[in-house]
Amino acid sequence: MKTDIDALMQEANVDALFVTGSGRHNPTMHYLTAGADVTSADLIKKRGEPGVLFHSPIERDGAKRTGLPTRSYSSLPHTEIMKEAKGDVIQFFILRYMRMFEDLEIRSGRVALYGQIDMSKGYAILSGLQKRLPNIEFVGFQNNDVLNSARNTKDKNEIARIQEMGRISTEVVGEVADFISGHEAKSEILVGKGGDPLTIGDIKRRITLWLAERGAEDTGTIFAIGRDAGVPHNRGNPEDFIHLGKTIIFDISPCEAGGGYYFDLTRTWCVGYAPDAVQELYEQVNIVYHTIVKELKIGSLFADYTRRACELFEEYGHETICSHPRTEVGFNHSLGHGVGLDIHEFPFSQLASQDMIMPGSVITIEPGLYYPDRGMGVRIEDTLWAAPDGEFEIVADYPKELVLPIKSK
Amino acid sequence: MKTDIDALMQEANVDALFVTGSGRHNPTMHYLTAGADVTSADLIKKRGEPGVLFHSPIERDGAKRTGLPTRSYSSLPHTEIMKEAKGDVIQFFILRYMRMFEDLEIRSGRVALYGQIDMSKGYAILSGLQKRLPNIEFVGFQNNDVLNSARNTKDKNEIARIQEMGRISTEVVGEVADFISGHEAKSEILVGKGGDPLTIGDIKRRITLWLAERGAEDTGTIFAIGRDAGVPHNRGNPEDFIHLGKTIIFDISPCEAGGGYYFDLTRTWCVGYAPDAVQELYEQVNIVYHTIVKELKIGSLFADYTRRACELFEEYGHETICSHPRTEVGFNHSLGHGVGLDIHEFPFSQLASQDMIMPGSVITIEPGLYYPDRGMGVRIEDTLWAAPDGEFEIVADYPKELVLPIKSK
Repeated sequence: MKTDIDALMQEANVDALFVTGSGRHNPTMHYLTAGADVTSADLIKKRGEPGVLFHSPIERDGAKRTGLPTRSYSSLPHTEIMKEAKGDVIQFFILRYMRMFEDLEIRSGRVALYGQIDMSKGYAILSGLQKRLPNIEFVGFQNNDVLNSARNTKDKNEIARIQEMGRISTEVVGEVADFISGHEAKSEILVGKGGDPLTIGDIKRRITLWLAERGAEDTGTIFAIGRDAGVPHNRGNPEDFIHLGKTIIFDISPCEAGGGYYFDLTRTWCVGYAPDAVQELYEQVNIVYHTIVKELKIGSLFADYTRRACELFEEYGHETICSHPRTEVGFNHSLGHGVGLDIHEFPFSQLASQDMIMPGSVITIEPGLYYPDRGMGVRIEDTLWAAPDGEFEIVADYPKELVLPIKSK
Repeated sequence: MKTDIDALMQEANVDALFVTGSGRHNPTMHYLTAGADVTSADLIKKRGEPGVLFHSPIERDGAKRTGLPTRSYSSLPHTEIMKEAKGDVIQFFILRYMRMFEDLEIRSGRVALYGQIDMSKGYAILSGLQKRLPNIEFVGFQNNDVLNSARNTKDKNEIARIQEMGRISTEVVGEVADFISGHEAKSEILVGKGGDPLTIGDIKRRITLWLAERGAEDTGTIFAIGRDAGVPHNRGNPEDFIHLGKTIIFDISPCEAGGGYYFDLTRTWCVGYAPDAVQELYEQVNIVYHTIVKELKIGSLFADYTRRACELFEEYGHETICSHPRTEVGFNHSLGHGVGLDIHEFPFSQLASQDMIMPGSVITIEPGLYYPDRGMGVRIEDTLWAAPDGEFEIVADYPKELVLPIKSK
């Protein structure tokens, strides 16, 4: 949690945090500034002290609203730095950062780096800065990383924000179900009032709007049918029609507008009816989902549940990433991931991962089976919160019915 | 332009480009893959050869649609890499990248880095990789940077996409004007049918929706009134009412949904009437805008026009960043910036910048005057294209009327 940051810094032997970039779609900047309304800023936080936000003078209002101590870049000797940089933009940034660290009297120790920025300038500036400040050690991600560890355990306010995104998402999933159910089928294809086939593009445009109306941002909804549903991250072809009896994977993962907290949910639907082969896959995924959720324990290795899901799917005779690391069918992705200010964040459940599910972790559980050549894929995904009392709570639920009925055929 | 990349690589002595991160909101990845539908991938392009896209097996469809040669991460010896990494996630990535470079037979030379990613992992991986591959020199941004130079000169297709965003933006600005004009005022404040005051939040929610309906993404519209309009990047307080006669700065800069091409436009409005003091500021900004646009020449230093704008504003008696580098009033930002796959990209017009306006550059010209203590600010901004025939074309225009009339008072 945020309140653990200083202790985590001590544990990781980190003297200061250095977070850079925009206030938008930049998880660590959002985390430490409560979503600063700035297009580009630098936050430097010494252990045991509040972070200081360096900002452009034209963004002083956005910076001030964070409630943090702020310093305008104009308080640094701009003309002097410009002269010294001799028109070299990277040198300009290096020299300005040197002034900021000096300003905060950071002259030695370990400084951990964060912030979503372009590697091009980022690497040039940081490797240059490292050379100019040899007594400071700039460090990237480490296994006991400070901010990733802090973010792995959510506080009440964070949970409330993820729940609100969950409420909005499930409401929109309901709108989509009603919208589809309100259509009729002609030759096994859904058509609108004028007789024109409904397309995935039509549905996706509405999803974006329905999310925007509720203050959420569509971050690339997956709505994929048939063969495309058989490839986990295929987002679906906007021109595709909605065929009855074909699996639709509907994976919605919006965030607060501008890049705040996320939520993640997947349902698999067959419009009108479900063929036996689909029904069978669906039941297997559903059983694995419920088995895993029942077995989840706080303090355990997340990857162990990926292994457990493999075991269960293999009993049904499917290939998995455990038995066939290169498989493109069966269960071919890890079981889930953390959700917060990033759609994929700590803890991870990849087989190689050592991440633990902690009290306060928010994770997805999303078993699936994929057979593109058979024209089908099934995934069931919920976002769960490891509540401090040791129970796992579904953040926002939605019925898990495979068949989505329509008006008439 | 994209077609210049190999020549620019030669000029900059770069043997390969290495672009990493998501296909969404990641300008350089978008540029080289035409907007790959992947959540995380690595593109490595050797000089004179097409880029090769390394991707997760579950994103093989999105990768394939780019038309580039692709390699799945599953084609690399995953189990071997995992064992060698011993549970260290950074080592895992380093070892996997070593395999990718070996796969493409890149064993020496200069490799330029790109991609919007988190510095935390980015710096750890790249400094580790640099140590493991000492015969390769990984380079960040340089003054003749390859992709920034290429992106500075837009091709026909890019111009068409920016124009389309311009068409959408000006349409939405028109909708906003009509919406505001349809309101009545009560005690100098705009009110809705029920008599409740209209707020900036009400207007912003509509802007987001009107953009989304047209396939564009709201990236944080500025709609700031009175004192807030006097601070250039203040986005406006959602709770504020619309007072007659107060300056409103309306700065709209949407992009293609998911992060493609941007467009940028600002208009300043006074609802109902404009006080003389505002009218005077507005006329000065308008004259400076038109003077600069008339004087623009391809092949010139963009920063020279910031200096020219300072000169003109100083003749009117205002403080500027040229005469008072730390000023928070008057003309206190640079004149404009490039627009493309980033809202702020090359060429820049900061006083320290050496960037040239090239044939094919797309830039904003946005002079402004800011007096927060007098409760006002004025900015006029258009996006202009330096067409190959040497003329500057306004990408999408909208009337520059200061006063926005309303129904009745």
